[in-house]
Amino acid sequence: MNPLIHCITNYVTVNDCANLLLAAGASPVMADEPAEVCEVTSKSQGLYVNIGTLNQNTILAMEKSIETANLYKIPVVLDPVGAGFTKLRTQTAKKFIENNKIAVIRGNFSEIKAIAGHEQVTRGVDSAHDLSDDFDEAVDFTRMFAKKTGSIIVISGEKDIIADNDGSKVMIVKNGHKMMKNITGAGCMLSALIAAYISDCDSRSVFDYVCKAVMCMDLCGEKAFSRMTENDGNASFRNYLIDAVFNFKPEDLKKAVYEIR
Amino acid sequence: MNPLIHCITNYVTVNDCANLLLAAGASPVMADEPAEVCEVTSKSQGLYVNIGTLNQNTILAMEKSIETANLYKIPVVLDPVGAGFTKLRTQTAKKFIENNKIAVIRGNFSEIKAIAGHEQVTRGVDSAHDLSDDFDEAVDFTRMFAKKTGSIIVISGEKDIIADNDGSKVMIVKNGHKMMKNITGAGCMLSALIAAYISDCDSRSVFDYVCKAVMCMDLCGEKAFSRMTENDGNASFRNYLIDAVFNFKPEDLKKAVYEIR
Amino acid sequence: MNPLIHCITNYVTVNDCANLLLAAGASPVMADEPAEVCEVTSKSQGLYVNIGTLNQNTILAMEKSIETANLYKIPVVLDPVGAGFTKLRTQTAKKFIENNKIAVIRGNFSEIKAIAGHEQVTRGVDSAHDLSDDFDEAVDFTRMFAKKTGSIIVISGEKDIIADNDGSKVMIVKNGHKMMKNITGAGCMLSALIAAYISDCDSRSVFDYVCKAVMCMDLCGEKAFSRMTENDGNASFRNYLIDAVFNFKPEDLKKAVYEIR
Repeated sequence: MNPLIHCITNYVTVNDCANLLLAAGASPVMADEPAEVCEVTSKSQGLYVNIGTLNQNTILAMEKSIETANLYKIPVVLDPVGAGFTKLRTQTAKKFIENNKIAVIRGNFSEIKAIAGHEQVTRGVDSAHDLSDDFDEAVDFTRMFAKKTGSIIVISGEKDIIADNDGSKVMIVKNGHKMMKNITGAGCMLSALIAAYISDCDSRSVFDYVCKAVMCMDLCGEKAFSRMTENDGNASFRNYLIDAVFNFKPEDLKKAVYEIR
Repeated sequence: MNPLIHCITNYVTVNDCANLLLAAGASPVMADEPAEVCEVTSKSQGLYVNIGTLNQNTILAMEKSIETANLYKIPVVLDPVGAGFTKLRTQTAKKFIENNKIAVIRGNFSEIKAIAGHEQVTRGVDSAHDLSDDFDEAVDFTRMFAKKTGSIIVISGEKDIIADNDGSKVMIVKNGHKMMKNITGAGCMLSALIAAYISDCDSRSVFDYVCKAVMCMDLCGEKAFSRMTENDGNASFRNYLIDAVFNFKPEDLKKAVYEIR
Repeated sequence: MNPLIHCITNYVTVNDCANLLLAAGASPVMADEPAEVCEVTSKSQGLYVNIGTLNQNTILAMEKSIETANLYKIPVVLDPVGAGFTKLRTQTAKKFIENNKIAVIRGNFSEIKAIAGHEQVTRGVDSAHDLSDDFDEAVDFTRMFAKKTGSIIVISGEKDIIADNDGSKVMIVKNGHKMMKNITGAGCMLSALIAAYISDCDSRSVFDYVCKAVMCMDLCGEKAFSRMTENDGNASFRNYLIDAVFNFKPEDLKKAVYEIR
């Protein structure tokens, strides 16, 4: 397949996202100059928007690209990094969702609750909430917010919650490893991977492919951890994680542990 | 502890700084849009400002964040990358120091001399000076500049010089490895680490924690080098360095070799 | 030698370019604020311009730096990333070439054809053309475009084509490894390496040093691949590639397989 994925993402983890996309067999193209982004998006098979280091210029680029993607029916993945932490981030993410069609929104529990309008305190780019506090409530919330927005919602945590865009299905993925919280970019990379996975599937399979992307990342997190030796830390883990995506095979998905509600 | 550290830093080594902070148990948040930086700083436990790829927009963001940090008594670490190399860098760093309270300034000898107003030629982002040329003079200079600015001054080199902000104490740390000069970001990462270390100590312990951060980084440099095998180079060393910080334990500080003057 | 190389490059692979330059014994300095770039360029031994994530501000910085480099006879290496993919990129690269002296232009076949004015469809940042389709024609084209522009032209592909700036000589380098296409930045790093290699050679040796840089990178790609073990992927390969440049010795060039036409 080798889909071309236009990424407007933060400069912290952009290199990891590019290598992750290449590992998954996709081609990344990064462009955030408003004068060229419509052209870039229109020639791509997927758009990945991440507000991790947003500024006035890139917000404008994001707006233009999302509109272009909607026009050409190119799927958009939004990662609302830090929503709930600053007004600008919360409002920017909300505006994108209210004015456009977003195929998938992926974030941590705090970020997603913030854009759903709940009074929320995100701590930097980390979730202020432990999903396990009231997991069933979180599942219900995810389902309802998916239905309300018409977007597939992915909430990352110890267990990941994925709700289809009509609220009819929720998948809970139980893989992954807590070491993933010790690197920057695990969430950003997952969002990028989702953009690649859904870029060329038919419209009835989008939810399935989002789930597959989440499982892939989680299983790769486990695989990466299993490679760690005594002196290894988060830098080596990051490399092992991308390596694992590079070596991931479709049949590896069989190892996923999940539940459908 | 897990302090939140707001970083306005260069896009060259920003990923390393983020992973280094995570390795040390801190949470990095990168934000440089002037419209949101005050909010970000005010909710953080430390502010790290690095002028390595400054531009008009980020200079404004840095100014606003430093003012906010001063207002909320959040400690500020300044890394004046390339001061002495261009007028803009020298003037920007000087302005920050003259108008605000900076807890710690860390740089190489050329950079620190440049912001002290000495005619100075920094070579790119490297020191034009070998500290060992006249080490005692360098120690005296560091002590005096600390007293003059009221900031703790850290000069990185083969031996590191750390002067308390009243000039009463100087610590010289003799650890580290010359391999650290072969990667980009060793200095940037140390400055970020200092921001994490001092973010929640009481005001009388700041100097001690700055010294601990320097020792930690130097010892991790030695550890990283000890892991290198025949085909390894600076890319592997970078990973080993961050890994070493991830695995660093307080008792490892006992291995530090230092001198107090 | 340790030349200082001013890089105005994309934020995706900038860290890799910096570590690659350090691996090769050069000193990178990244600066893209128009207010300081002339000063930075004028104090450097080489200028590397890469349009991978260009914006209005960095285009202005590139223009000023290229003019300054021309004034001080500092060699300029241009990497026209994504030329042929968007109008802005094609036009920006063309403008640089038409108005200034560029020592070396390095890109993939699509990018170079696009700036030569051929109707061309670059696919994101990847070549839409397989060089092997009509290799002899590609060689002729490279030679003619070199003569027309007065720049040394490097076209990267399975085999690399390097044409001297008067069209008198073409070298074809047959080393390298297809794994290099699985990481982001292999091209960017090669362009940076070329800037380092030609920064202090005499004017009659520039073509030789460009060829050496290409051979070095290709041989390091082979070496990096030879280090890969079962679980390694593109992240490990990237580290091994930079490591290989760090450990590269002039006598290793003897292993290069090439042809002169």
